[in-house]
Amino acid sequence: MDQIQLQKLDTTVLKWLDQVHHLVEQRVRQRMQVDTKSSHRDLVTNVDREVEQYYVQHIRNFDPEAQILGEEGLGDAVKSMKGRIWFVDPIDGTMNFVKQQSEFATMVAVYEDGEPVMAWIMDVQQHDIIHGGPEYGVFHNGEKLELSADIGLDEGLVILSGARLLYEEPGFPQLAKAAMGYRVYGSAGISYLHVLTGKAVAYLSRMRPWDFAAGITLAKSLGLRVGTIDEQPMNMLVSGSVLVATDKAYADIMALLQKKG
Amino acid sequence: MDQIQLQKLDTTVLKWLDQVHHLVEQRVRQRMQVDTKSSHRDLVTNVDREVEQYYVQHIRNFDPEAQILGEEGLGDAVKSMKGRIWFVDPIDGTMNFVKQQSEFATMVAVYEDGEPVMAWIMDVQQHDIIHGGPEYGVFHNGEKLELSADIGLDEGLVILSGARLLYEEPGFPQLAKAAMGYRVYGSAGISYLHVLTGKAVAYLSRMRPWDFAAGITLAKSLGLRVGTIDEQPMNMLVSGSVLVATDKAYADIMALLQKKG
Repeated sequence: MDQIQLQKLDTTVLKWLDQVHHLVEQRVRQRMQVDTKSSHRDLVTNVDREVEQYYVQHIRNFDPEAQILGEEGLGDAVKSMKGRIWFVDPIDGTMNFVKQQSEFATMVAVYEDGEPVMAWIMDVQQHDIIHGGPEYGVFHNGEKLELSADIGLDEGLVILSGARLLYEEPGFPQLAKAAMGYRVYGSAGISYLHVLTGKAVAYLSRMRPWDFAAGITLAKSLGLRVGTIDEQPMNMLVSGSVLVATDKAYADIMALLQKKG
Repeated sequence: MDQIQLQKLDTTVLKWLDQVHHLVEQRVRQRMQVDTKSSHRDLVTNVDREVEQYYVQHIRNFDPEAQILGEEGLGDAVKSMKGRIWFVDPIDGTMNFVKQQSEFATMVAVYEDGEPVMAWIMDVQQHDIIHGGPEYGVFHNGEKLELSADIGLDEGLVILSGARLLYEEPGFPQLAKAAMGYRVYGSAGISYLHVLTGKAVAYLSRMRPWDFAAGITLAKSLGLRVGTIDEQPMNMLVSGSVLVATDKAYADIMALLQKKG
């Protein structure tokens, strides 16, 4: 896509995000319907479904040829990365959404023939958005975002998946101990916003495609390092252990993980 | 103190908090001087000291008879809980302050002959304040705060000290597993704000007096449960393992801790 097309794409999705912000704010004041999916900790609400439905409708209108891969399954059964694919996570951090009404995100990413084009992450309650792509640059609420200082693990905060740490995913406790400090936020989107703005030096979790598509697009576009930690190549259609970090923290983490293996 | 005195106390400290908010905002834009205390993870900045100095000066003017127990040691060497004592934590979550410029708090509490009188916790960057006392009620930015629903551990989020969990303080991993989810925020004040507003059902950490004085005052005043988990009586002048929780989560946690012992 050329700059005019990217600009139009950005403007369009930013308008959707404003609508999603207002929709979610309204729904928070009403009674929410909370259901469980794979376990009693895997929550879904009517709002997750309604927001995904909103995205799917608007994407179909705007980009009818594209396929949509969404968390709640209202899009398509995407089998390959050919053509244009929209990754949609309507409410990321649903437990925070239900319990806290804050610290949750909404995420959208566009890929074309396997390559990232643009992505958006919004802290919904704060209405705080990072958006951009490799050919477009990265912006924080419309202002150019610059890459923060390249800080190593022992000088920075690392954000970890709470479950992966608690059940001692290989390397996770060691990483937490080697870092200056660690945090557990319960939302991939909120965690990515921390790394993108230089508040944390790394974020690691095992995630599904809609959890990491936007985060890795924005991280790469900004100049952060992106990789997997389970020695699997990055596959945009399956779950993986995804790491986003500063150059130095990336090297620190990889060295630690190799030592333990 | 009567209601007029409590009201005056509240108004006075709320004015100080506004000043502290502005002072910290200014300092964040300038170059910060970061030093370490007991370890390379125990940070202190010129802002911690400057804010404590601000409190000490204003408390001396407002309440010259009182003693002051502050984190940075600019107050008094308090030996007993007799008379009026001000607990001051100028910047709680200094690592977040340094690394994130957000998710840190400032906390003040007033005790009289060992009994809590009033307390204030401010999320400094968000300028979000919970304030009140047992004879005054609890307020969230001036609006009466009501006790949230009494939710148990398996239906709510628990907030834990990251270090205590990582180094497997007895019971902590079990609590994290029993809860619906756990979070690690790196600031006692920010954690207390979550429990006070019903976003989390419990917060546990080993803390020093200025870390918990305001939190337990506001929690008790609101009707939450407060206790220690190391079988020591609560002592306002020494460190302790302090728990603040809903009634149900308190019972759940105590049952879990007894089972493991």
